[in-house]
Amino acid sequence: MTNKRFFEERRTIRKYAPRHIEDELLAEIVKEASHAPTTGNMQLYSVIATRAKDIKEMLAPCHFNQPSVMECDVLLTFCADFSRFSRWCVLSEANPGYDNFQSFVTTLLDTAIFAQQFCTAAEMRGLGCCYLGTTTYNAPKIAEILRLPSLVVPVTTISLGYPADSGVDAGRLPISAVLHMEQYHDYTDEEIIDLYSEKEEREDSKSFVEENNKKSLAQVFTDIRYTREANEHFSKVYYDFIVSQGYTMPD
Amino acid sequence: MTNKRFFEERRTIRKYAPRHIEDELLAEIVKEASHAPTTGNMQLYSVIATRAKDIKEMLAPCHFNQPSVMECDVLLTFCADFSRFSRWCVLSEANPGYDNFQSFVTTLLDTAIFAQQFCTAAEMRGLGCCYLGTTTYNAPKIAEILRLPSLVVPVTTISLGYPADSGVDAGRLPISAVLHMEQYHDYTDEEIIDLYSEKEEREDSKSFVEENNKKSLAQVFTDIRYTREANEHFSKVYYDFIVSQGYTMPD
Repeated sequence: MTNKRFFEERRTIRKYAPRHIEDELLAEIVKEASHAPTTGNMQLYSVIATRAKDIKEMLAPCHFNQPSVMECDVLLTFCADFSRFSRWCVLSEANPGYDNFQSFVTTLLDTAIFAQQFCTAAEMRGLGCCYLGTTTYNAPKIAEILRLPSLVVPVTTISLGYPADSGVDAGRLPISAVLHMEQYHDYTDEEIIDLYSEKEEREDSKSFVEENNKKSLAQVFTDIRYTREANEHFSKVYYDFIVSQGYTMPD
Repeated sequence: MTNKRFFEERRTIRKYAPRHIEDELLAEIVKEASHAPTTGNMQLYSVIATRAKDIKEMLAPCHFNQPSVMECDVLLTFCADFSRFSRWCVLSEANPGYDNFQSFVTTLLDTAIFAQQFCTAAEMRGLGCCYLGTTTYNAPKIAEILRLPSLVVPVTTISLGYPADSGVDAGRLPISAVLHMEQYHDYTDEEIIDLYSEKEEREDSKSFVEENNKKSLAQVFTDIRYTREANEHFSKVYYDFIVSQGYTMPD
């Protein structure tokens, strides 16, 4: 497969074959991903690879019991980690100043970049991945189960395994929706409607709207999938957890 | 080149040949990257591709005049963007609830994942990239120059061009520094010292320490590169800017 085809044809994989991923292979993919760009070469992340059934069973409710948690071969929790680096500073007669919002954002970006390079490296070896966005919702409980110290915060989770199916083409917006030349080109209402029209016309979108008894696909997002109430609730949960892990927010 | 070699041998490229990247090629790479995983298939990001000399000249000081801003063929500012999606909701008789911290974190992850997939896709086509971490520091000014509307926040910038050199192998920590099996394995002091020893022994690290008249490599980070004073200053700048762009923080 050419790289071009790889990128456009990659799919999220949620169903896995009962096939073991060797520790050596997992370590090789982590090694490949660790060469992804990282701020000041600080590598401000950790990844926790969980296979043990009892720990996965504890984590499953944190991910609202999405089946891929128990069915995957390895569950990977990617964490923003300024702990390791700060401890090295202290041991080197240096005073770390990384317990703040700017530093948290830096670890978050480092972690997401590392996770995505892991995902790409794994997919290029024929493995299948699914990101679990539930990680930030239930970060406090995940942190307790995985025994995270201060300055370590769960950011995202990937379930990993050999694919049992080929996934579904979810489609994407046209390029003109996301690429702006020179400066941000703000959209007219007509452009917005046009950019999302292909997505709305998909059969799976129409089914979502009908099954949920909604008037539009957008209402499935706002009223069911990502509601204001849930977003505001989990905003406070994650914000307070980040603070409790030692990152001070500005006044 | 095999994929394995690609991942481990990729390098940050800061020097570019005077060779034009066609718009068609740029759009193809954006298209490839847009197939990266994204939360709920919402694609909560925009990328602004700047080539115009006058706009790059305005952006350069925001990136502390790093030469790659002016020398690259295209400067790409990756922005967290809940504006486009929220406007689609309003136009679809749906009430978006995405002006909060949880939603901001979601856009941040979506944007970093997209940026990294862009970086990988570009590198696999022989182009060279450098992330500019200065983006969060000077987000308010960048937003003004690039005319970003509400709910759009600069997250990171990539300078892109055909490589003029092969970059430098900056080295990485051993895998055992970042990979934890089953649960987080907190480090002993001896382990921390051991994990960073190879990094400290590098010739370039020793030069940094000597040139800056410091006692340890860690002091170069804490006293010069990423100081508490700067981190706390830019924490407030970025935090306040996120709020001014319409994301409400929890009480």
